[in-house]
Amino acid sequence: MKQIDVCLTPELLHLHTVENTIVVVADVFRATSCMVTAFAYGVNSIIPVATIEECRDWQERGYLAAAERNAQRVDGFELDNSPFTYMDEQIRGANVAMTTTNGTLAITKSRSAVKVLVGSFLNLDAIARFLQSERYDVMVLCAGWKGRVNMEDTLFAGALVDRLKDSYAMAEDSAIMSWRLYCQGKDNLPSYLANSSHIRRLQRLGIQKDITYCLQHDLYDVVPVLRGNALVSMQV
Amino acid sequence: MKQIDVCLTPELLHLHTVENTIVVVADVFRATSCMVTAFAYGVNSIIPVATIEECRDWQERGYLAAAERNAQRVDGFELDNSPFTYMDEQIRGANVAMTTTNGTLAITKSRSAVKVLVGSFLNLDAIARFLQSERYDVMVLCAGWKGRVNMEDTLFAGALVDRLKDSYAMAEDSAIMSWRLYCQGKDNLPSYLANSSHIRRLQRLGIQKDITYCLQHDLYDVVPVLRGNALVSMQV
Repeated sequence: MKQIDVCLTPELLHLHTVENTIVVVADVFRATSCMVTAFAYGVNSIIPVATIEECRDWQERGYLAAAERNAQRVDGFELDNSPFTYMDEQIRGANVAMTTTNGTLAITKSRSAVKVLVGSFLNLDAIARFLQSERYDVMVLCAGWKGRVNMEDTLFAGALVDRLKDSYAMAEDSAIMSWRLYCQGKDNLPSYLANSSHIRRLQRLGIQKDITYCLQHDLYDVVPVLRGNALVSMQV
Repeated sequence: MKQIDVCLTPELLHLHTVENTIVVVADVFRATSCMVTAFAYGVNSIIPVATIEECRDWQERGYLAAAERNAQRVDGFELDNSPFTYMDEQIRGANVAMTTTNGTLAITKSRSAVKVLVGSFLNLDAIARFLQSERYDVMVLCAGWKGRVNMEDTLFAGALVDRLKDSYAMAEDSAIMSWRLYCQGKDNLPSYLANSSHIRRLQRLGIQKDITYCLQHDLYDVVPVLRGNALVSMQV
Protein backbone atom coordinates (compact mmCIF):
# COMPACT_ATOMS: atom_id res chain seq x y z
CA MET A 1 0.00 0.00 0.00
CA LYS A 2 1.21 3.51 -0.76
CA GLN A 3 1.88 5.79 2.21
CA ILE A 4 0.87 9.35 2.99
CA ASP A 5 3.11 11.29 5.34
CA VAL A 6 2.64 14.81 6.74
CA CYS A 7 5.48 17.18 7.55
CA LEU A 8 3.96 19.85 9.79
CA THR A 9 6.58 22.52 9.03
CA PRO A 10 9.63 22.88 6.73
CA GLU A 11 11.74 22.94 9.94
CA LEU A 12 11.06 19.20 10.28
CA LEU A 13 11.70 18.35 6.63
CA HIS A 14 15.09 16.72 7.37
CA LEU A 15 13.25 14.03 9.37
CA HIS A 16 11.04 13.06 6.43
CA THR A 17 11.75 11.30 3.17
CA VAL A 18 11.40 13.42 0.06
CA GLU A 19 13.18 11.09 -2.38
CA ASN A 20 10.88 8.73 -4.28
CA THR A 21 7.96 10.73 -2.96
CA ILE A 22 5.51 13.21 -4.44
CA VAL A 23 5.44 16.30 -2.25
CA VAL A 24 2.32 18.44 -2.00
CA VAL A 25 3.14 21.89 -0.60
CA ALA A 26 0.36 23.74 1.20
CA ASP A 27 0.36 27.36 2.31
CA VAL A 28 -3.40 27.78 2.43
CA PHE A 29 -3.36 31.40 3.69
CA ARG A 30 -2.54 32.47 1.03
CA ALA A 31 0.41 31.56 -1.22
CA THR A 32 -0.72 28.23 -2.62
CA SER A 33 -4.35 29.37 -2.86
CA CYS A 34 -3.10 32.31 -4.94
CA MET A 35 -1.06 30.02 -7.17
CA VAL A 36 -3.96 27.65 -7.77
CA THR A 37 -6.25 30.58 -8.56
CA ALA A 38 -3.68 32.00 -10.96
CA PHE A 39 -3.49 28.71 -12.88
CA ALA A 40 -7.28 28.48 -12.94
CA TYR A 41 -7.27 31.93 -14.58
CA GLY A 42 -4.74 30.91 -17.20
CA VAL A 43 -1.32 31.96 -15.92
CA ASN A 44 1.46 30.32 -17.96
CA SER A 45 4.05 29.81 -15.22
CA ILE A 46 4.97 30.91 -11.69
CA ILE A 47 8.56 31.05 -10.49
CA PRO A 48 8.77 30.81 -6.69
CA VAL A 49 11.76 32.83 -5.48
CA ALA A 50 13.31 33.26 -2.05
CA THR A 51 14.00 36.98 -1.92
CA ILE A 52 12.37 40.26 -2.87
CA GLU A 53 15.51 41.13 -4.88
CA GLU A 54 15.14 38.03 -7.07
CA CYS A 55 11.51 38.93 -7.57
CA ARG A 56 12.57 42.36 -8.81
CA ASP A 57 15.11 40.78 -11.19
CA TRP A 58 12.38 38.70 -12.84
CA GLN A 59 10.14 41.76 -12.98
CA GLU A 60 12.82 43.60 -14.95
CA ARG A 61 12.84 40.72 -17.42
CA GLY A 62 9.13 41.22 -18.10
CA TYR A 63 7.52 38.94 -15.50
CA LEU A 64 4.55 40.00 -13.45
CA ALA A 65 5.72 39.99 -9.84
CA ALA A 66 4.19 39.38 -6.43
CA ALA A 67 5.91 39.77 -3.07
CA GLU A 68 4.53 39.26 0.41
CA ARG A 69 6.18 39.56 3.78
CA ASN A 70 4.39 39.09 7.12
CA ALA A 71 1.06 38.68 5.35
CA GLN A 72 1.34 42.08 3.65
CA ARG A 73 2.00 43.16 0.07
CA VAL A 74 5.44 44.58 -0.70
CA ASP A 75 5.34 47.86 -2.63
CA GLY A 76 6.47 48.06 -6.24
CA PHE A 77 4.97 44.82 -7.52
CA GLU A 78 1.96 44.32 -9.78
CA LEU A 79 0.30 41.52 -7.87
CA ASP A 80 -1.11 41.35 -4.41
CA ASN A 81 -0.98 38.34 -2.09
CA SER A 82 -4.75 38.11 -2.27
CA PRO A 83 -6.18 35.39 -4.55
CA PHE A 84 -8.64 37.95 -5.95
CA THR A 85 -5.74 39.78 -7.62
CA TYR A 86 -5.22 36.76 -9.83
CA MET A 87 -8.76 36.76 -11.22
CA ASP A 88 -7.79 39.17 -13.95
CA GLU A 89 -7.31 39.22 -17.71
CA GLN A 90 -3.65 40.36 -17.35
CA ILE A 91 -2.94 36.92 -15.84
CA ARG A 92 -3.84 34.89 -18.95
CA GLY A 93 -0.64 33.57 -20.54
CA ALA A 94 1.56 35.61 -18.19
CA ASN A 95 4.70 34.48 -16.40
CA VAL A 96 4.79 35.40 -12.73
CA ALA A 97 7.58 35.58 -10.14
CA MET A 98 6.42 35.24 -6.55
CA THR A 99 8.02 35.42 -3.11
CA THR A 100 6.12 34.84 0.15
CA THR A 101 6.99 34.47 3.83
CA ASN A 102 6.52 30.70 3.99
CA GLY A 103 5.10 29.05 0.89
CA THR A 104 7.79 29.69 -1.71
CA LEU A 105 10.54 28.46 0.64
CA ALA A 106 8.63 25.23 1.25
CA ILE A 107 8.46 24.65 -2.51
CA THR A 108 12.16 25.25 -3.14
CA LYS A 109 13.11 23.03 -0.17
CA SER A 110 11.28 20.07 -1.77
CA ARG A 111 13.14 20.07 -5.10
CA SER A 112 14.57 16.57 -4.67
CA ALA A 113 11.10 14.96 -4.70
CA VAL A 114 9.81 12.96 -7.69
CA LYS A 115 7.31 15.78 -8.21
CA VAL A 116 6.42 18.90 -6.24
CA LEU A 117 2.73 19.84 -6.45
CA VAL A 118 0.95 22.91 -5.13
CA GLY A 119 -2.07 22.14 -2.99
CA SER A 120 -4.92 24.10 -1.44
CA PHE A 121 -8.52 23.41 -0.56
CA LEU A 122 -9.40 25.00 -3.90
CA ASN A 123 -7.82 22.13 -5.89
CA LEU A 124 -8.03 19.36 -3.27
CA ASP A 125 -10.00 16.98 -5.45
CA ALA A 126 -7.75 17.51 -8.49
CA ILE A 127 -4.66 16.79 -6.36
CA ALA A 128 -6.25 13.68 -4.85
CA ARG A 129 -7.26 12.30 -8.25
CA PHE A 130 -3.81 12.94 -9.70
CA LEU A 131 -2.10 11.18 -6.77
CA GLN A 132 -4.39 8.17 -7.03
CA SER A 133 -3.10 7.61 -10.55
CA GLU A 134 0.55 7.65 -9.45
CA ARG A 135 2.53 4.84 -7.87
CA TYR A 136 4.57 6.95 -5.43
CA ASP A 137 4.21 7.66 -1.73
CA VAL A 138 2.98 11.15 -0.86
CA MET A 139 4.18 13.72 1.63
CA VAL A 140 2.23 16.86 2.43
CA LEU A 141 4.58 19.68 3.38
CA CYS A 142 2.78 22.28 5.46
CA ALA A 143 4.40 25.68 4.98
CA GLY A 144 3.57 26.75 8.54
CA TRP A 145 4.35 30.19 9.89
CA LYS A 146 8.03 31.11 10.19
CA GLY A 147 8.91 27.54 11.04
CA ARG A 148 6.07 26.91 13.46
CA VAL A 149 3.15 24.63 12.72
CA ASN A 150 -0.17 26.21 11.87
CA MET A 151 -3.73 25.05 11.90
CA GLU A 152 -4.85 25.80 8.35
CA ASP A 153 -2.06 23.93 6.56
CA THR A 154 -2.42 21.02 8.98
CA LEU A 155 -6.14 20.91 8.16
CA PHE A 156 -5.36 20.82 4.44
CA ALA A 157 -3.00 17.89 5.10
CA GLY A 158 -5.80 16.17 7.02
CA ALA A 159 -8.23 16.82 4.17
CA LEU A 160 -5.88 15.16 1.68
CA VAL A 161 -5.34 12.22 4.05
CA ASP A 162 -9.13 11.93 4.26
CA ARG A 163 -9.52 11.83 0.47
CA LEU A 164 -6.74 9.24 0.09
CA LYS A 165 -7.30 7.08 3.15
CA ASP A 166 -8.73 4.08 1.29
CA SER A 167 -5.63 3.63 -0.87
CA TYR A 168 -2.83 5.12 1.28
CA ALA A 169 -1.63 4.13 4.75
CA MET A 170 -0.98 6.97 7.21
CA ALA A 171 2.78 6.92 7.67
CA GLU A 172 3.18 8.43 11.14
CA ASP A 173 1.36 10.24 13.92
CA SER A 174 1.47 13.60 12.14
CA ALA A 175 -0.75 12.15 9.40
CA ILE A 176 -3.17 10.68 11.94
CA MET A 177 -3.26 13.93 13.93
CA SER A 178 -3.91 16.06 10.84
CA TRP A 179 -6.66 13.72 9.71
CA ARG A 180 -8.33 13.70 13.14
CA LEU A 181 -8.29 17.50 13.31
CA TYR A 182 -9.79 17.75 9.82
CA CYS A 183 -12.54 15.27 10.69
CA GLN A 184 -13.35 17.33 13.78
CA GLY A 185 -13.43 20.64 11.94
CA LYS A 186 -14.54 19.90 8.39
CA ASP A 187 -18.22 20.70 8.79
CA ASN A 188 -17.39 24.29 9.63
CA LEU A 189 -13.79 25.17 8.88
CA PRO A 190 -14.19 28.96 9.19
CA SER A 191 -15.49 28.62 12.73
CA TYR A 192 -13.01 25.84 13.60
CA LEU A 193 -10.18 28.14 12.52
CA ALA A 194 -11.56 31.25 14.18
CA ASN A 195 -9.06 31.25 17.06
CA SER A 196 -6.01 30.24 15.06
CA SER A 197 -3.07 32.61 15.10
CA HIS A 198 -2.91 33.27 11.36
CA ILE A 199 -6.63 33.97 11.16
CA ARG A 200 -6.18 36.53 13.92
CA ARG A 201 -3.21 37.98 12.00
CA LEU A 202 -5.22 38.18 8.77
CA GLN A 203 -8.32 39.58 10.43
CA ARG A 204 -6.24 42.40 11.79
CA LEU A 205 -5.39 43.07 8.14
CA GLY A 206 -9.09 43.03 7.27
CA ILE A 207 -9.21 40.24 4.73
CA GLN A 208 -12.03 38.01 5.90
CA LYS A 209 -13.10 37.68 2.26
CA ASP A 210 -9.78 35.96 1.39
CA ILE A 211 -10.13 33.53 4.30
CA THR A 212 -13.62 32.46 3.30
CA TYR A 213 -12.50 32.03 -0.30
CA CYS A 214 -9.39 29.96 0.54
CA LEU A 215 -11.42 27.48 2.62
CA GLN A 216 -13.69 26.48 -0.28
CA HIS A 217 -13.13 22.92 -1.48
CA ASP A 218 -12.68 21.67 -5.06
CA LEU A 219 -13.23 24.89 -6.95
CA TYR A 220 -10.60 24.34 -9.64
CA ASP A 221 -9.44 21.36 -11.62
CA VAL A 222 -5.76 22.38 -11.75
CA VAL A 223 -2.59 20.70 -10.47
CA PRO A 224 0.40 23.04 -10.47
CA VAL A 225 3.70 21.15 -10.62
CA LEU A 226 7.30 22.29 -10.34
CA ARG A 227 9.26 21.88 -13.61
CA GLY A 228 12.83 23.13 -13.26
CA ASN A 229 12.52 26.46 -11.46
CA ALA A 230 8.92 27.19 -12.46
CA LEU A 231 5.47 25.95 -11.58
CA VAL A 232 3.32 25.01 -14.55
CA SER A 233 -0.16 23.55 -14.80
CA MET A 234 -0.54 19.83 -15.34
CA GLN A 235 -3.69 18.65 -17.08
CA VAL A 236 -5.61 16.05 -15.06
CA MET B 1 -3.13 36.67 31.26
CA LYS B 2 -0.45 34.01 31.41
CA GLN B 3 0.20 32.01 28.23
CA ILE B 4 0.54 28.32 27.56
CA ASP B 5 2.59 27.29 24.54
CA VAL B 6 3.19 23.82 23.13
CA CYS B 7 6.39 22.75 21.38
CA LEU B 8 5.52 19.56 19.50
CA THR B 9 9.08 18.23 19.31
CA PRO B 10 12.53 19.26 20.61
CA GLU B 11 13.49 19.87 16.93
CA LEU B 12 11.29 22.99 17.04
CA LEU B 13 12.55 24.26 20.41
CA HIS B 14 14.63 27.05 18.83
CA LEU B 15 11.37 28.65 17.61
CA HIS B 16 9.91 28.82 21.12
CA THR B 17 10.74 30.92 24.14
CA VAL B 18 12.19 29.03 27.08
CA GLU B 19 13.48 32.02 29.03
CA ASN B 20 11.08 33.37 31.65
CA THR B 21 8.97 30.28 31.11
CA ILE B 22 8.27 27.13 33.08
CA VAL B 23 8.83 24.14 30.81
CA VAL B 24 6.90 20.90 31.33
CA VAL B 25 8.61 18.01 29.55
CA ALA B 26 6.42 15.08 28.51
CA ASP B 27 7.56 11.70 27.22
CA VAL B 28 4.44 9.79 28.14
CA PHE B 29 5.56 6.42 26.69
CA ARG B 30 7.48 5.97 28.93
CA ALA B 31 10.32 8.10 30.31
CA THR B 32 8.38 10.77 32.18
CA SER B 33 5.76 8.28 33.37
CA CYS B 34 8.63 6.23 34.83
CA MET B 35 10.12 9.29 36.51
CA VAL B 36 6.82 10.32 38.08
CA THR B 37 6.23 6.76 39.29
CA ALA B 38 9.74 6.65 40.76
CA PHE B 39 9.13 9.82 42.75
CA ALA B 40 5.75 8.52 43.91
CA TYR B 41 7.64 5.48 45.23
CA GLY B 42 10.17 7.59 47.08
CA VAL B 43 13.20 7.94 44.83
CA ASN B 44 15.54 10.68 46.08
CA SER B 45 16.79 12.03 42.73
CA ILE B 46 17.02 11.17 39.04
CA ILE B 47 19.85 12.40 36.85
CA PRO B 48 18.84 12.50 33.18
CA VAL B 49 21.90 11.81 31.04
CA ALA B 50 22.44 11.82 27.29
CA THR B 51 24.50 8.69 26.72
CA ILE B 52 24.69 5.10 27.87
CA GLU B 53 28.35 5.71 28.85
CA GLU B 54 27.40 8.52 31.24
CA CYS B 55 24.76 6.26 32.70
CA ARG B 56 27.42 3.62 33.35
CA ASP B 57 29.68 6.24 35.02
CA TRP B 58 26.94 7.11 37.50
CA GLN B 59 26.27 3.43 38.08
CA GLU B 60 29.89 2.95 39.06
CA ARG B 61 29.48 5.73 41.62
CA GLY B 62 26.63 3.81 43.29
CA TYR B 63 23.58 5.09 41.42
CA LEU B 64 20.83 2.79 40.25
CA ALA B 65 20.81 3.07 36.47
CA ALA B 66 18.25 2.81 33.68
CA ALA B 67 18.94 2.94 29.97
CA GLU B 68 16.54 2.63 27.07
CA ARG B 69 17.11 2.81 23.34
CA ASN B 70 14.40 2.31 20.71
CA ALA B 71 11.85 1.46 23.41
CA GLN B 72 13.96 -1.44 24.72
CA ARG B 73 16.02 -1.94 27.88
CA VAL B 74 19.79 -1.79 27.52
CA ASP B 75 21.58 -4.70 29.17
CA GLY B 76 23.69 -4.20 32.29
CA PHE B 77 21.44 -1.78 34.15
CA GLU B 78 19.26 -2.42 37.20
CA LEU B 79 16.15 -0.63 36.03
CA ASP B 80 13.84 -1.26 33.15
CA ASN B 81 12.10 1.39 31.11
CA SER B 82 8.77 0.10 32.37
CA PRO B 83 7.10 2.15 35.12
CA PHE B 84 6.40 -1.09 37.02
CA THR B 85 10.15 -1.50 37.65
CA TYR B 86 10.00 1.60 39.81
CA MET B 87 7.31 0.26 42.15
CA ASP B 88 9.92 -1.37 44.31
CA GLU B 89 11.44 -0.99 47.78
CA GLN B 90 14.96 -0.57 46.32
CA ILE B 91 13.77 2.75 44.88
CA ARG B 92 13.07 4.41 48.24
CA GLY B 93 15.77 7.02 48.93
CA ALA B 94 17.83 5.91 45.94
CA ASN B 95 19.58 8.09 43.38
CA VAL B 96 18.97 7.07 39.79
CA ALA B 97 20.72 7.86 36.50
CA MET B 98 18.55 7.50 33.40
CA THR B 99 19.01 7.77 29.67
CA THR B 100 16.21 7.32 27.14
CA THR B 101 15.75 7.79 23.39
CA ASN B 102 13.77 11.03 23.62
CA GLY B 103 12.78 12.16 27.11
CA THR B 104 16.11 12.84 28.77
CA LEU B 105 17.32 14.92 25.82
CA ALA B 106 14.19 17.06 25.99
CA ILE B 107 14.90 17.75 29.66
CA THR B 108 18.52 18.73 29.16
CA LYS B 109 17.61 20.96 26.19
CA SER B 110 15.29 23.02 28.43
CA ARG B 111 17.85 23.97 31.08
CA SER B 112 17.57 27.72 30.50
CA ALA B 113 13.92 27.80 31.61
CA VAL B 114 12.83 29.27 34.96
CA LYS B 115 11.96 25.73 36.01
CA VAL B 116 11.88 22.40 34.18
CA LEU B 117 9.10 20.07 35.37
CA VAL B 118 8.43 16.46 34.45
CA GLY B 119 4.87 15.81 33.32
CA SER B 120 2.74 12.77 32.52
CA PHE B 121 -0.92 11.90 32.75
CA LEU B 122 -0.08 10.29 36.11
CA ASN B 123 0.70 13.67 37.71
CA LEU B 124 -1.35 15.96 35.47
CA ASP B 125 -3.39 17.47 38.26
CA ALA B 126 -0.34 18.08 40.49
CA ILE B 127 1.43 19.86 37.61
CA ALA B 128 -1.65 21.96 36.83
CA ARG B 129 -2.10 23.03 40.45
CA PHE B 130 1.57 23.91 40.80
CA LEU B 131 1.51 26.03 37.61
CA GLN B 132 -1.63 27.88 38.72
CA SER B 133 0.29 29.12 41.76
CA GLU B 134 3.15 30.49 39.64
CA ARG B 135 3.28 33.75 37.73
CA TYR B 136 5.20 32.51 34.69
CA ASP B 137 4.12 31.49 31.21
CA VAL B 138 4.21 27.76 30.52
CA MET B 139 5.57 25.75 27.64
CA VAL B 140 4.91 22.04 27.23
CA LEU B 141 7.82 20.36 25.47
CA CYS B 142 6.72 17.12 23.84
CA ALA B 143 9.63 14.70 23.61
CA GLY B 144 8.31 13.16 20.39
CA TRP B 145 10.01 10.26 18.66
CA LYS B 146 13.49 10.89 17.25
CA GLY B 147 12.56 14.46 16.43
CA ARG B 148 9.15 13.73 14.96
CA VAL B 149 5.90 14.67 16.64
CA ASN B 150 3.90 11.95 18.31
CA MET B 151 0.32 11.55 19.36
CA GLU B 152 0.67 10.65 23.05
CA ASP B 153 2.86 13.59 24.07
CA THR B 154 0.67 15.95 22.04
CA LEU B 155 -2.36 14.60 23.90
CA PHE B 156 -0.65 15.23 27.23
CA ALA B 157 0.02 18.82 26.12
CA GLY B 158 -3.65 19.13 25.20
CA ALA B 159 -4.69 17.74 28.58
CA LEU B 160 -2.60 20.35 30.37
CA VAL B 161 -4.00 23.12 28.15
CA ASP B 162 -7.47 21.83 29.04
CA ARG B 163 -6.75 22.01 32.78
CA LEU B 164 -5.28 25.51 32.52
CA LYS B 165 -7.51 27.07 29.89
CA ASP B 166 -9.42 29.34 32.27
CA SER B 167 -6.30 31.13 33.46
CA TYR B 168 -3.90 30.76 30.51
CA ALA B 169 -4.25 31.94 26.92
CA MET B 170 -3.25 29.46 24.20
CA ALA B 171 -0.13 30.99 22.68
CA GLU B 172 -0.17 29.57 19.16
CA ASP B 173 -1.83 27.03 16.91
CA SER B 174 0.13 24.11 18.37
CA ALA B 175 -1.59 24.70 21.73
CA ILE B 176 -5.01 24.91 20.08
CA MET B 177 -4.34 21.79 18.00
CA SER B 178 -3.16 19.77 21.01
CA TRP B 179 -6.16 20.85 23.02
CA ARG B 180 -8.61 20.00 20.22
CA LEU B 181 -7.08 16.53 19.82
CA TYR B 182 -7.28 15.90 23.56
CA CYS B 183 -10.93 17.01 23.69
CA GLN B 184 -11.70 14.63 20.83
CA GLY B 185 -9.91 11.66 22.40
CA LYS B 186 -10.14 12.11 26.16
CA ASP B 187 -13.11 9.86 26.78
CA ASN B 188 -11.19 6.88 25.51
CA LEU B 189 -7.50 7.58 25.13
CA PRO B 190 -6.39 3.94 24.70
CA SER B 191 -8.69 3.50 21.72
CA TYR B 192 -7.90 6.99 20.36
CA LEU B 193 -4.21 6.11 20.42
CA ALA B 194 -4.64 2.61 19.04
CA ASN B 195 -3.27 3.43 15.58
CA SER B 196 -0.46 5.72 16.66
CA SER B 197 3.04 4.75 15.65
CA HIS B 198 4.51 4.43 19.13
CA ILE B 199 1.64 2.28 20.35
CA ARG B 200 2.25 -0.03 17.42
CA ARG B 201 5.97 -0.04 18.30
CA LEU B 202 5.23 -0.84 21.96
CA GLN B 203 2.64 -3.46 21.16
CA ARG B 204 5.17 -5.30 19.06
CA LEU B 205 7.22 -5.34 22.27
CA GLY B 206 4.24 -6.73 24.16
CA ILE B 207 3.73 -4.08 26.81
CA GLN B 208 0.06 -3.23 26.65
CA LYS B 209 0.04 -3.13 30.46
CA ASP B 210 2.48 -0.18 30.46
CA ILE B 211 0.37 1.70 27.92
CA THR B 212 -2.81 1.34 29.95
CA TYR B 213 -0.96 2.41 33.10
CA CYS B 214 0.65 5.50 31.53
CA LEU B 215 -2.71 6.81 30.29
CA GLN B 216 -4.25 6.97 33.77
CA HIS B 217 -4.86 10.53 34.98
CA ASP B 218 -3.95 12.06 38.35
CA LEU B 219 -2.58 9.03 40.12
CA TYR B 220 0.26 10.76 41.98
CA ASP B 221 0.65 14.07 43.72
CA VAL B 222 4.28 14.64 42.73
CA VAL B 223 5.99 17.37 40.70
CA PRO B 224 9.53 16.44 39.67
CA VAL B 225 11.67 19.52 39.01
CA LEU B 226 15.19 19.90 37.64
CA ARG B 227 17.67 21.27 40.24
CA GLY B 228 21.16 21.53 38.79
CA ASN B 229 21.71 18.29 36.94
CA ALA B 230 19.18 16.22 38.89
CA LEU B 231 15.43 15.91 39.11
CA VAL B 232 14.03 16.08 42.62
CA SER B 233 10.50 16.03 43.96
CA MET B 234 8.81 19.28 44.82
CA GLN B 235 6.09 19.18 47.44
CA VAL B 236 2.79 20.65 46.22
